[in-house]
Amino acid sequence: MTTRKPTMADVARHAGVSLKTVSRVVNQEPHVRASVQQRVQAAISALGYRRNEAAARLARGATMLTLGLVMENISNEFYARLAAAVEAAAAEHEALVVFGSYEESPDKERMLIESMAARGVDSLIVVPSAADHGWLAEHASLRMVFVDRLPPGLATADVVVLDDEGGGRAATEHLLARGHRRVALISDDDGLSSVHDRAAGYRAALAAAGLPADEGLVVRGVFDPCLVAEEVARLLDLADPPTAFFAANNRAAIGILRALRERAERPAYVGFDDFALADVFSPGVTVVRYDVPMLARTAVDLLLRPADGAARLVKLPVELIPRGSGELPPP
Amino acid sequence: MTTRKPTMADVARHAGVSLKTVSRVVNQEPHVRASVQQRVQAAISALGYRRNEAAARLARGATMLTLGLVMENISNEFYARLAAAVEAAAAEHEALVVFGSYEESPDKERMLIESMAARGVDSLIVVPSAADHGWLAEHASLRMVFVDRLPPGLATADVVVLDDEGGGRAATEHLLARGHRRVALISDDDGLSSVHDRAAGYRAALAAAGLPADEGLVVRGVFDPCLVAEEVARLLDLADPPTAFFAANNRAAIGILRALRERAERPAYVGFDDFALADVFSPGVTVVRYDVPMLARTAVDLLLRPADGAARLVKLPVELIPRGSGELPPP
Repeated sequence: MTTRKPTMADVARHAGVSLKTVSRVVNQEPHVRASVQQRVQAAISALGYRRNEAAARLARGATMLTLGLVMENISNEFYARLAAAVEAAAAEHEALVVFGSYEESPDKERMLIESMAARGVDSLIVVPSAADHGWLAEHASLRMVFVDRLPPGLATADVVVLDDEGGGRAATEHLLARGHRRVALISDDDGLSSVHDRAAGYRAALAAAGLPADEGLVVRGVFDPCLVAEEVARLLDLADPPTAFFAANNRAAIGILRALRERAERPAYVGFDDFALADVFSPGVTVVRYDVPMLARTAVDLLLRPADGAARLVKLPVELIPRGSGELPPP
Repeated sequence: MTTRKPTMADVARHAGVSLKTVSRVVNQEPHVRASVQQRVQAAISALGYRRNEAAARLARGATMLTLGLVMENISNEFYARLAAAVEAAAAEHEALVVFGSYEESPDKERMLIESMAARGVDSLIVVPSAADHGWLAEHASLRMVFVDRLPPGLATADVVVLDDEGGGRAATEHLLARGHRRVALISDDDGLSSVHDRAAGYRAALAAAGLPADEGLVVRGVFDPCLVAEEVARLLDLADPPTAFFAANNRAAIGILRALRERAERPAYVGFDDFALADVFSPGVTVVRYDVPMLARTAVDLLLRPADGAARLVKLPVELIPRGSGELPPP
């Protein structure tokens, strides 16, 4: 906190005036008393405040620098952490975040984006659904960055994704290295690029180890942890059950935890996505982790630094964190 | 979904036009082609859409019905659930939510509120910090509802709180009924009315059982689960340790889970606040639970139905959910 650049808010606090007053002084608007103006200028000098591009935009119109964040579901821990990180990244640019979640409904996703655009939110960060996003081509004035997944049907967009395939491969290789030969994949909507790529990494690792891809061990399109738990129980009841699981997202990992609560088996498992309590379980949950604040900062950066043409694709690294569940041996 | 009232978004989808176009037709604005107007009117008739007060406000200005939600920390599960619930409640009124979190800094809380006000957000839901909120008296044009805690220094505000004292008493009585006589309290900032009232309930239950309140068993002002874990470990190492804990919030409950991970003791504990994985631990975490969607709906309702003078205080019920950790006997 001590090395960050002073913000308009710091100036407001130092001068004992409102943010709006500082904004008026900085923008040389009328209706500010001379004494107040002097106090603000003194605070600006004392703190070494310098107006940045973002702050200048903010000052030009009250609603100019509001970032919209459109995501699937704020009550999923991944989105809560992403929202907190986007908010922190936006705050560095003195911007607010308007957020909305579309609960897996592409229709609601579209309504949210249109509604935000109608309210003057011109910069959007979107975690896109699996639906076609070609309709966004008509919203050329909107500045958008897609996060976590590629938007289908919109080749020109800036995107920040994770190394999903690398993560899927690392998770599966980790399990294979412990001697597992029957590794199940618990996944959701294959139409999402992230889900698709994690599954591709899983298959690549199996192929590299010379193992057949047994589609009977692959569960797809299951979103709710309770339904995941049922699928995991079903797999464990097979005549030749899996001895390990790769959970392609946090809901799948939580579903496995639920399923194992009432069973004697202790299969190994690795989850994609860290979560707050992953290290409190016994054994701790081995996960593929990534830097959520960096994901958010990268998206906000792309949004505020317009490209000169070509679409930008940033792929962020992931890392495997061993905590116990992924290191269990086959029975 | 089938019984809810049709919204402008439904009309837009049905007519195959944008939300903005529907808004223009509903408000009889110019620049809508006759054929489009007819299509929208047909959709309005087909769906039985009726403009409500909120939608009319929305239509009068793009940013009019934006609710601001100011809270402590979106990455804490309580706030993520509250945010999702406020968003769902706001969506019923075709409103968006602008959110911000102040990370326990009363200064940032004030900046957020002022910044939102400067952007035309005139309706705010605030989970207030423990600081004096008297300064808000000068923002008479802002419509505000406080949630979860009373705002210190602002007697005139509408507030929705939980039955914190009743919950604290129920949790403690539950532990006493299992034979515990040394019950510790893990709490955070006593300056927050919710925290204060939960502790008051704890003390009331001890007093009713004729037990002395041992201040050596009370931990206050600890926010981080890892620090809570250290305090719990310290208490368990006492010569006469507690055999049960009342965790006054979800961070305290998670801290207890962390502390017990590496210890032989199995003290009983009850947490205030439910959390997604509470039933997955073994034993499951007994909690004082409340209806987060109702909390959100009540707040949005108060915000959209202005009072005719007197401040309104709504207190919502809580209930104890036994899952195992609160039913463990003393050793």
